[in-house]
Amino acid sequence: MLKGGVPSSALPAHSDVAFLFDLDGTLVDSVYQHVLAWQESLQQANIELATWRIHRRVGMSGGLFVRALARELGRPVAAEDAERLQRLHAEGYLRRIGQVRPLPGARDLLDFLTSLSVPWAIATSGTREGAQGTIQLLGREGPISLITREDVARAKPDPDLFLAAAARLKVPITQCAVVGDSVWDLLAARRCGALGIGLLSGGYGEDELVRAGAYRVYEDPADLLRHLDEVGVR
Amino acid sequence: MLKGGVPSSALPAHSDVAFLFDLDGTLVDSVYQHVLAWQESLQQANIELATWRIHRRVGMSGGLFVRALARELGRPVAAEDAERLQRLHAEGYLRRIGQVRPLPGARDLLDFLTSLSVPWAIATSGTREGAQGTIQLLGREGPISLITREDVARAKPDPDLFLAAAARLKVPITQCAVVGDSVWDLLAARRCGALGIGLLSGGYGEDELVRAGAYRVYEDPADLLRHLDEVGVR
Repeated sequence: MLKGGVPSSALPAHSDVAFLFDLDGTLVDSVYQHVLAWQESLQQANIELATWRIHRRVGMSGGLFVRALARELGRPVAAEDAERLQRLHAEGYLRRIGQVRPLPGARDLLDFLTSLSVPWAIATSGTREGAQGTIQLLGREGPISLITREDVARAKPDPDLFLAAAARLKVPITQCAVVGDSVWDLLAARRCGALGIGLLSGGYGEDELVRAGAYRVYEDPADLLRHLDEVGVR
Repeated sequence: MLKGGVPSSALPAHSDVAFLFDLDGTLVDSVYQHVLAWQESLQQANIELATWRIHRRVGMSGGLFVRALARELGRPVAAEDAERLQRLHAEGYLRRIGQVRPLPGARDLLDFLTSLSVPWAIATSGTREGAQGTIQLLGREGPISLITREDVARAKPDPDLFLAAAARLKVPITQCAVVGDSVWDLLAARRCGALGIGLLSGGYGEDELVRAGAYRVYEDPADLLRHLDEVGVR
């Protein structure tokens, strides 16, 4: 295919595609711990919200989560209550982190992409502090391109996190594949013209991810690694 | 509609339909606690299984769960190991039961059916001991028709639990609506000719339940209560 005059040295070495990974539920098996940590923090504030509804909101921005919560409760949530909930959640997640593991194939996938010089980054709606504890589980040496909540004005499903990650990699966003386990990743991918790829490892059903715009859905990072050709990695 | 010669006194008072409810994820918001209790027990046995895969197996018979586990591990699981896993899971679930709540509308739905003299029962793959702790959360007085693992030779997705529940209610199984949150409930319903109704409150996606044979899918017991007419309750 003609490259439209772009000098080939400006393109990644082995592939035209770069990968922007979500973290929780995509590389690390932490969604269920986040869900129960949220539920615990809500219960401590005397807010009862069914667990599956919390599950379906993990990965969206905290501000939107609080707005959705207000709708469920039928009343606004004060800013100081929202802050307290987020603090309690962070504490509850850290208490559960001993049960969290990397997802099957996550390390191999990142190693393989690195060996091909395919650029990749991690972009999460979570805070840098929380993300760094989780990323340690991936056991990688050397720096990782990591974009967190603090780096952008708006978290997912706004596309800011993925746009910032693409800019960090110096790759046009339209050359990027966004890999995530939630509809928030896929909506954000659509909004910036990236290719959305869904993983079942966060506990969503396949159809939910397809309807949210996933080009392909794989079980987990190991399954994606086995099918990288389908995503255009040479 | 002609009743084919059946005397009307042999039919339930206000409705031709009876309800056979699954328990965890259907009436009580306990699936995520079961998932993490299973994961903890597996980790204690040095077995790593991704959380979403455990989630998708909650509600199936323990024997089939162990068989699925053996496939994931690529080796058989010894009977004493399977027993130990089940004991660790039961203990882990009890440690988490303080976080478990009835699902929205569960009490109202059971009260409403009772007020209409629509027969209903609960049929769970769990043990009687575990189920009774969970059922207490529904806060009902008086006896409940409860069928558990001990009452049948095979748990879900075999239809035995639902067949036993229908027999307990003295209602033909083909007049029964099976309400459940998992594909195991819906597969069992198909296998005995009951009408399967799915609830999202266990965390499955809608499409998974529809593909497994759900005639309708509602969010939770409250949503089913609002739409009982769609299920044929007069």
